[in-house]
Amino acid sequence: MSSLQQHDIPADIACCHDYERYAEQILPQPHWHYIAGGSGNESTLKANNIVFDKFGLQQTLLPDINQINTRVILNSERHENPILVAPIAYQQLAHQDGELATVQAANAQDISMVLSTLSSTSLEQVAQYQTSQPLWFQLYIQPDKEHTYDLIKRAEQAGYTSLVITLDAPINGLRNREQRHQFSLPEHIQAQNLQPYSQSVSNQAATGLSSQQVMLSRLLAQSPRWKDISDIIANTRLSVYLKGILTVSDAKKAKELGAAGIIVSNHGGRILDGVPTSIEMLPLIRQAVGHDIEILCDSGIRSGSDIFKALALGANSVLVGRPVIYGLATAGAMGVAHCLRLLKDELQLTMALTGCASISDITIDKIRLP
Amino acid sequence: MSSLQQHDIPADIACCHDYERYAEQILPQPHWHYIAGGSGNESTLKANNIVFDKFGLQQTLLPDINQINTRVILNSERHENPILVAPIAYQQLAHQDGELATVQAANAQDISMVLSTLSSTSLEQVAQYQTSQPLWFQLYIQPDKEHTYDLIKRAEQAGYTSLVITLDAPINGLRNREQRHQFSLPEHIQAQNLQPYSQSVSNQAATGLSSQQVMLSRLLAQSPRWKDISDIIANTRLSVYLKGILTVSDAKKAKELGAAGIIVSNHGGRILDGVPTSIEMLPLIRQAVGHDIEILCDSGIRSGSDIFKALALGANSVLVGRPVIYGLATAGAMGVAHCLRLLKDELQLTMALTGCASISDITIDKIRLP
Amino acid sequence: MSSLQQHDIPADIACCHDYERYAEQILPQPHWHYIAGGSGNESTLKANNIVFDKFGLQQTLLPDINQINTRVILNSERHENPILVAPIAYQQLAHQDGELATVQAANAQDISMVLSTLSSTSLEQVAQYQTSQPLWFQLYIQPDKEHTYDLIKRAEQAGYTSLVITLDAPINGLRNREQRHQFSLPEHIQAQNLQPYSQSVSNQAATGLSSQQVMLSRLLAQSPRWKDISDIIANTRLSVYLKGILTVSDAKKAKELGAAGIIVSNHGGRILDGVPTSIEMLPLIRQAVGHDIEILCDSGIRSGSDIFKALALGANSVLVGRPVIYGLATAGAMGVAHCLRLLKDELQLTMALTGCASISDITIDKIRLP
Amino acid sequence: MSSLQQHDIPADIACCHDYERYAEQILPQPHWHYIAGGSGNESTLKANNIVFDKFGLQQTLLPDINQINTRVILNSERHENPILVAPIAYQQLAHQDGELATVQAANAQDISMVLSTLSSTSLEQVAQYQTSQPLWFQLYIQPDKEHTYDLIKRAEQAGYTSLVITLDAPINGLRNREQRHQFSLPEHIQAQNLQPYSQSVSNQAATGLSSQQVMLSRLLAQSPRWKDISDIIANTRLSVYLKGILTVSDAKKAKELGAAGIIVSNHGGRILDGVPTSIEMLPLIRQAVGHDIEILCDSGIRSGSDIFKALALGANSVLVGRPVIYGLATAGAMGVAHCLRLLKDELQLTMALTGCASISDITIDKIRLP
Ligand SMILES: Cc1cc2nc3c(=O)[nH]c(=O)nc-3n(C[C@H](O)[C@H](O)[C@H](O)COP(=O)(O)O)c2cc1C
Ligand SMILES: Cc1cc2nc3c(=O)[nH]c(=O)nc-3n(C[C@H](O)[C@H](O)[C@H](O)COP(=O)(O)O)c2cc1C
Ligand SMILES: Cc1cc2nc3c(=O)[nH]c(=O)nc-3n(C[C@H](O)[C@H](O)[C@H](O)COP(=O)(O)O)c2cc1C
Ligand SMILES: Cc1cc2nc3c(=O)[nH]c(=O)nc-3n(C[C@H](O)[C@H](O)[C@H](O)COP(=O)(O)O)c2cc1C
Repeated sequence: MSSLQQHDIPADIACCHDYERYAEQILPQPHWHYIAGGSGNESTLKANNIVFDKFGLQQTLLPDINQINTRVILNSERHENPILVAPIAYQQLAHQDGELATVQAANAQDISMVLSTLSSTSLEQVAQYQTSQPLWFQLYIQPDKEHTYDLIKRAEQAGYTSLVITLDAPINGLRNREQRHQFSLPEHIQAQNLQPYSQSVSNQAATGLSSQQVMLSRLLAQSPRWKDISDIIANTRLSVYLKGILTVSDAKKAKELGAAGIIVSNHGGRILDGVPTSIEMLPLIRQAVGHDIEILCDSGIRSGSDIFKALALGANSVLVGRPVIYGLATAGAMGVAHCLRLLKDELQLTMALTGCASISDITIDKIRLP
Repeated sequence: MSSLQQHDIPADIACCHDYERYAEQILPQPHWHYIAGGSGNESTLKANNIVFDKFGLQQTLLPDINQINTRVILNSERHENPILVAPIAYQQLAHQDGELATVQAANAQDISMVLSTLSSTSLEQVAQYQTSQPLWFQLYIQPDKEHTYDLIKRAEQAGYTSLVITLDAPINGLRNREQRHQFSLPEHIQAQNLQPYSQSVSNQAATGLSSQQVMLSRLLAQSPRWKDISDIIANTRLSVYLKGILTVSDAKKAKELGAAGIIVSNHGGRILDGVPTSIEMLPLIRQAVGHDIEILCDSGIRSGSDIFKALALGANSVLVGRPVIYGLATAGAMGVAHCLRLLKDELQLTMALTGCASISDITIDKIRLP
Repeated sequence: MSSLQQHDIPADIACCHDYERYAEQILPQPHWHYIAGGSGNESTLKANNIVFDKFGLQQTLLPDINQINTRVILNSERHENPILVAPIAYQQLAHQDGELATVQAANAQDISMVLSTLSSTSLEQVAQYQTSQPLWFQLYIQPDKEHTYDLIKRAEQAGYTSLVITLDAPINGLRNREQRHQFSLPEHIQAQNLQPYSQSVSNQAATGLSSQQVMLSRLLAQSPRWKDISDIIANTRLSVYLKGILTVSDAKKAKELGAAGIIVSNHGGRILDGVPTSIEMLPLIRQAVGHDIEILCDSGIRSGSDIFKALALGANSVLVGRPVIYGLATAGAMGVAHCLRLLKDELQLTMALTGCASISDITIDKIRLP
Repeated sequence: MSSLQQHDIPADIACCHDYERYAEQILPQPHWHYIAGGSGNESTLKANNIVFDKFGLQQTLLPDINQINTRVILNSERHENPILVAPIAYQQLAHQDGELATVQAANAQDISMVLSTLSSTSLEQVAQYQTSQPLWFQLYIQPDKEHTYDLIKRAEQAGYTSLVITLDAPINGLRNREQRHQFSLPEHIQAQNLQPYSQSVSNQAATGLSSQQVMLSRLLAQSPRWKDISDIIANTRLSVYLKGILTVSDAKKAKELGAAGIIVSNHGGRILDGVPTSIEMLPLIRQAVGHDIEILCDSGIRSGSDIFKALALGANSVLVGRPVIYGLATAGAMGVAHCLRLLKDELQLTMALTGCASISDITIDKIRLP
């Protein structure tokens, strides 16, 4: 990985969100808009960006704590931080080192990565770089059932410890910005995991609305049903997390099906514009499903303070998407590591000022509701 | 129609609303402001532009549907889509092909057009280009009763299937933007349908406030009364839709008079600044009049998602005004066709993601109220 | 008056508010900021500018009216329009013709002017130009009681028909904008009415905070008390209107003292920043005092629609301040006349579209509350 | 103090907030951002800036007052104005004359200064310049208990009359802006009071997040506990004010511990982003603790009107932070004096217009709640 030492971290980056403006300058316009954009009018994307600021914090004066411990148990594994790298397709779009840079940087920061089905590096290759942290695999169910099960088997064999099945993206969203800039995948970047099944290109790999629409009926017919999910749960030894849940009823269904956890997410505002923010739905969902099931959450997390708020509202952990990719675009693995480091530091500082010695101290009374 | 193949669709148009910025550049300033502008401070116009975003959507995960069907019955006719082209005066202002381009493009997209009384092409000529889709005629009641009935007879004879009587524009609105840019109708563009009755120019043709004010009393004296409406309903075989309804009581009155339907509309914010948005009034009106009368709706529809929301709030179909004209200005008939195509595709995609196989599945629980 | 025919009305003025941007360019910066500015952070001034848009209107479809009549009775006089020109000091700052241009233009539009105590033309000279319309005089109570009564006597003798006593400006507001631009009255512009009493310059003539502060105690000691008001009411044959009322209790006090009317006003946001808008307080005040006392209203009126809303909320008439002065600055008397003409036309159009044949038809149900 | 007469006050400064734009131009970028910035997204800082405008004022017409008296008793001392200069570290960053300029200017305006532990001039030297006004000392509790008590003893000996213990800054906030501009303390500017104990640099002196984080555990272990506060109260003859209180429960605790007063403050939005504004919490806190304990308040005070509102909501006095420093940066002592003078004048003017002859007349009914 040639570039690991090459890049310097820009001196004026003070928080992980600061990577965004660098990424915007570094990336080719179409790539930038593919990554940064949302669907439709981007009203959900905009809501993701502002919803956290609507929740305030409550400082604890002169707290009686000596140490901050951010450890959590997820999937019966010990995670040093309540943070995972969200599954993001085609990371070589951001940087030539792609997923390999990300996984190494995450590992270096004691953070687990969720690898996308649509990774530009194969799941097997990524797994080789796995060191201390458990690796998770994000599954897009394939049109052909055999391919789906083959992917699962490969993930098991490569040592991934859990399966994140994404439910909210049966078809691509209406990503106007991306289309306006005529984004298309460069030849040399491909969904490596799907190469063996190249006949049936994954739905999600399609970009561009018109081709999509032509295929709408076909896509719908091929897209997964709830029965497919319960079959997978029954047939894998991996723990299954269902990603893209935004309603109480879907959360309850996930629990009934025996999922290990759910990921409350609006896919970063990229699928159906107008759906709510994760953070709005989180407390309702937690209240409805109780504490027997893990709840993770993403979409809009940009700081340690955002993480703190998500945890206070009921999440066991969060996932971080674009900021990681902006770090990657700006400074390769160093950028990813720095980005994650900043998040961890900020979370600890927030805990210190709110008097939380451990994650379980982060309760709803530590935040101020809108 | 010379230009039908001439224009290329700009590559960076991803949704029908994107035509607006092209139209703004292509059109002469006064024309642009005549079309784009609203009345007064444009507070109703601005509200039209933002009200849809206040309603969210509810995604349905893993919906069990194979096909999307957007068919509706309006005026006992089968319409492939719950979309009509709104009546817009003087379309040659936007493009030399004017209404002929629009009607052909609409037909090509299986969408019906409502022709304005103030069309720059005569209703008879437009009707010749009618192919598969039913044509509707929008009526401005004329100062001279005979002229009004002559127009109706001509519409009947030319094969129009319904009559949209516009109630909200007895006089022009206070269109400041238009006046600031000193818009006036070019010599070669005329209200062709009214040529036979040229003595009595229609009220609505008048532009410019001061002439209007001089004539205010005369206009008021000549403007229609409710009795005129019921007379027309009794004396035409066409179905009558009343356009410009914004209150429950007017909707009920329309129903009592035996109208086939009403069009909830604020005329695109062009008449009395300060009236509410259609979308706010829609559910109240639907609840008051029940389901025995059709409710159409316009003013501010810019995407398939907006259409979806209007249907969820009680409309049987929507009408689209300015975006069609912006498509026309940008790329003639091709622009109109593309604009309508995008709306249809977006509606289908929204239905797919919300789990609606047919229009009747689009119920209020699919949206999130403000 | 040399300039009466000299100026052309700019072609792109469509409503009276359009004069503002012309005035901003024409006037010397300090003059502009003196006229346009408010006090403090200008939060009251900003509220004045936006509060009217919070109230919507209700259109009446197919109204059964033939004529619009805008006549009102104020001070037992017939006024053709529910509009007066507000008292504005030193109008020669805006245009060399000053108050003489304004009074003539107002007369030409059948509108009465309220002349300020601080006019740059003497009240006697202005009265000579009075033609058809009654003239009103605005009184700032003077430090010296004799001067106050002398002013009243002069107003009576010159034929003014009512006395508007301004209560809200015992001292100048904290007009930061004005001070930042170091506004001071040019030598040749003076408070003509006060020349005879030049020893005791009126409080209100003072500009510049620091001089003001030095004199704060003196100003307070000299400033009027309620007893002074009731004495004046008892000792003049003019009807007395109290200007600057913003609370129910002050409105009731005015009624008890026997005032002919009150003017609900925040002085155009120029005195104490943070006081409410007139339009917010108007309905509460009307409800409290009933209909035995006239209520006029100003601060923020910029269109016929604004006038309509003020009347619907309980006013008998409005006063218009800055727009008139902007018309004056832009085009002298012609500008004032045009400005007032636009307001009248707009009011009539609004009445036509809401189905109001006369001012008494403008009731609260014609508007939509926020 | 070479510069005391050197600087002229810019002519376009009309209120103390106007100094901000001058300071922004005069100061080196990193210094500017260190002073002006807040923590995190600066949402608390932004709230500080706008919260006051949400409260309106109620004018009193024709008030019966002759004089304005702004005197208050704080700490059993007579203060001519309910205003103190807030403790601000390292004032030589703003101007070479630093704290000496500030203390003299404050004295000249009959206003007391609270000197920071982190002053760039020693507490003894500042005390020499003390003239008429009592001086207060702000204490950051030191890692080493002896040093804390030594500081207290020195303050007592130098004649300071009260001790403001800051509770809300055990560690620096996450000041992104400051870090982006790589602020660090210039060599020649130092925490003079802490020189004797140079081994153990105060926590608060540290800038830069990463060093901070490394030391997080150490900082936490060394940071004060409530017991330390009560010990200090028991062992000093100075009155103790606790600064940084934002909750009712902490206010009650302060009262129980025997503090002379509390300072409701969010430290100018510099510590934990997301905490509420002082002004929101003030009335709740006053109501909870009653009137036996003094309540001071800071964070966002920018005008006499802001001071008035804070007093109406329950404060006995306010502290002003950044504006004073901006005055200092712009024009040294003259700027500070002018800044304070403007605040005093504005407060008096506001009192005059609201009919308050003395501070005790400033009651909650004089303001309009949001
Ligand atoms: C460029 C991009 C690609 C993504 N690809 C995938 C993917 O392949 N699988 C998936 O489940 N989610 C994908 N997501 C969604 C993320 O996993 C995550 O839900 C989202 O980015 C979180 O929001 P944030 O970016 O605001 O942190 C993608 C998001 C982005 C921005
Ligand atoms: C330039 C223009 C001309 C119009 N002419 C007519 C007309 O002749 N008759 C009519 O009933 N409505 C007319 N309308 C109103 C439209 O039918 C429709 O109500 C409105 O445009 C819908 O709002 P939208 O433009 O936001 O889609 C016109 C609108 C515009 C913008
Ligand atoms: C430049 C200027 C001078 C004014 N002079 C006076 C005055 O001499 N006497 C008075 O009662 N009001 C005075 N006013 C207040 C106006 O009478 C009126 O209340 C206010 O302008 C209404 O608000 P508007 O300007 O938004 O219409 C003045 C206002 C302005 C803008
Ligand atoms: C540059 C700067 C330095 C500060 N240093 C201290 C300090 O040393 N001790 C302290 O208690 N507060 C300190 N504060 C906080 C102030 O005392 C005060 O709470 C805050 O500035 C009030 O908000 P304002 O700046 O909006 O008026 C500092 C504030 C600023 C802006």
